[in-house]
Amino acid sequence: MRRRTDRLSIEDFMLRPVEPIAPVAGQALIATRMIALDPYLARAMKSWTGEHPDWGDGTIHGRVIGEVLATRSPALAVGDHVLAVARWQAFDVVDAAQVEILDSRIDPPSLALGVVGRSGITAWVGLHLAAPQSGETLLVSAASGPVGSVVGQLAKARGLRVVGTAGGEEKCAYVRDTLGFDACLDHRLPDLVERIAAAAPHGVDILFENVGAPSLDAALPAMNRHGRIQLCGLAAHYNDEQPMALRHFKELLYRAITLRGFITAEHSHLFAPALAALHAGIDEGWIRHSETIVDGLENAPAAYLDMLKGQGIGKRLIRP
Amino acid sequence: MRRRTDRLSIEDFMLRPVEPIAPVAGQALIATRMIALDPYLARAMKSWTGEHPDWGDGTIHGRVIGEVLATRSPALAVGDHVLAVARWQAFDVVDAAQVEILDSRIDPPSLALGVVGRSGITAWVGLHLAAPQSGETLLVSAASGPVGSVVGQLAKARGLRVVGTAGGEEKCAYVRDTLGFDACLDHRLPDLVERIAAAAPHGVDILFENVGAPSLDAALPAMNRHGRIQLCGLAAHYNDEQPMALRHFKELLYRAITLRGFITAEHSHLFAPALAALHAGIDEGWIRHSETIVDGLENAPAAYLDMLKGQGIGKRLIRP
Repeated sequence: MRRRTDRLSIEDFMLRPVEPIAPVAGQALIATRMIALDPYLARAMKSWTGEHPDWGDGTIHGRVIGEVLATRSPALAVGDHVLAVARWQAFDVVDAAQVEILDSRIDPPSLALGVVGRSGITAWVGLHLAAPQSGETLLVSAASGPVGSVVGQLAKARGLRVVGTAGGEEKCAYVRDTLGFDACLDHRLPDLVERIAAAAPHGVDILFENVGAPSLDAALPAMNRHGRIQLCGLAAHYNDEQPMALRHFKELLYRAITLRGFITAEHSHLFAPALAALHAGIDEGWIRHSETIVDGLENAPAAYLDMLKGQGIGKRLIRP
Repeated sequence: MRRRTDRLSIEDFMLRPVEPIAPVAGQALIATRMIALDPYLARAMKSWTGEHPDWGDGTIHGRVIGEVLATRSPALAVGDHVLAVARWQAFDVVDAAQVEILDSRIDPPSLALGVVGRSGITAWVGLHLAAPQSGETLLVSAASGPVGSVVGQLAKARGLRVVGTAGGEEKCAYVRDTLGFDACLDHRLPDLVERIAAAAPHGVDILFENVGAPSLDAALPAMNRHGRIQLCGLAAHYNDEQPMALRHFKELLYRAITLRGFITAEHSHLFAPALAALHAGIDEGWIRHSETIVDGLENAPAAYLDMLKGQGIGKRLIRP
């Protein structure tokens, strides 16, 4: 990153050559095979002032899959695939104690950045915290994204009616036809409030919110008394310092709704059951998933900004 | 009420003569001694279209204290003071089954519309639901109002640090000096965000919100991780259909905050312990309270609109 800005733009990113670094004792050299375009990084990117403790030289650090090229740790072998937080570079040195060797059943390994990684875990944990009951109706925004897609399929498997919102008919068709949601609404078309009400004839019991004002505000008039909102993400606002304008905020009071912000990392005791359920769903064929992979590190800035704008389906990744 | 409007104004109200109605079996005729200017009525006033089930002829119905003038029910005696939902009139007939005879220890009887009525109960119930712990910090908006004033005093008695916000130095002085809050901040002055942070050096654990965007938005940056927001009222917005603009909404996510809208009427099993605690606090002298009484039914519309704008201290009442 070059500088602090209020709004991330392509000019905030730069690509520069780096020299390979030799690993010291306890470290390994990895080739970066896949980089996750995680929305939460935007906050750190925007606020970077040269003082981020983990971003010493301003190189973005994020979740990657690496292949071990050389190792000075007995815990890692050459050829191992590891999950790490590392620089957005073609290679990096990592502390063996800070990485996780991937389960060989994760194929392709990139899934460990998505459906059986933080995205899928976030979906499972967030849904678990919302205490879904069979017969309830769940509405989830960014339904074609790596979290929303899993939330909806998990909820379907638990007997809920599931309605998604997504940007564009292509995504909505994927959400309905491939993921099996009961309905998916294009949030770019008018009358979203009325269309949500029509798609949720018994009202919405759980809103799983990944986007922010546009979807949250349209959902509130359809929510049932004592509805629950799991506030998981605010993707529409990470690159926007404008106030969020909510026309229907009062419904939170009138309908005695509970809104809960949650941070996946705070619920690590739930990761094991989450991963077990996610692997089972994939093995049994009822969790479908997809990735949008862009080749070339030089394309990462544009792909990241596109992802923040909602482009792409499933987990968005860079293959350096 | 005359008509539906987006924003209540003095022209929406009219005073008209009424004829006394004789009570039938099971009813009583009451003289209205005090009328509560309850913020929640604004919603019904604004949306009245001639079809409100309880407002047949358009006369506002609200919480009142009445004195029984004539009775055709064995449950009521002439001279009884009753708590009722009745027309904003100098007299009305009420169903004996729908009213509550006031405890004679409530002196003056008007307190049954405030500190030992719905306002005090709302304060106790809302605070109870927030599970306050000794040593935590509570921030409450509309701190000189009938709910906020009691919330803060109850929280002080439970060992919390209590900070209020209110409109103007006169109210703040009352909140600090008479009610005994640790601090009270005038929300009309600039830099409220910074002043809240200074008044809550350990951060805010519980926000008890009675007002809406201006106080909620300023409080969010001071809230602790896992903070709780009891959304009790949105007084700044009842007479406003503009979107609520919240600059710091993202903090709900980043700090894993839980926001809970609650409706006092849904927690009636808590009314008895609430009233017991409120009476004890008054008898023991550590709950202080006040009323702002306006004489004359003809002054009710202006007084109601003034109340919505935040004028007056304690419970706002009309003495017909």
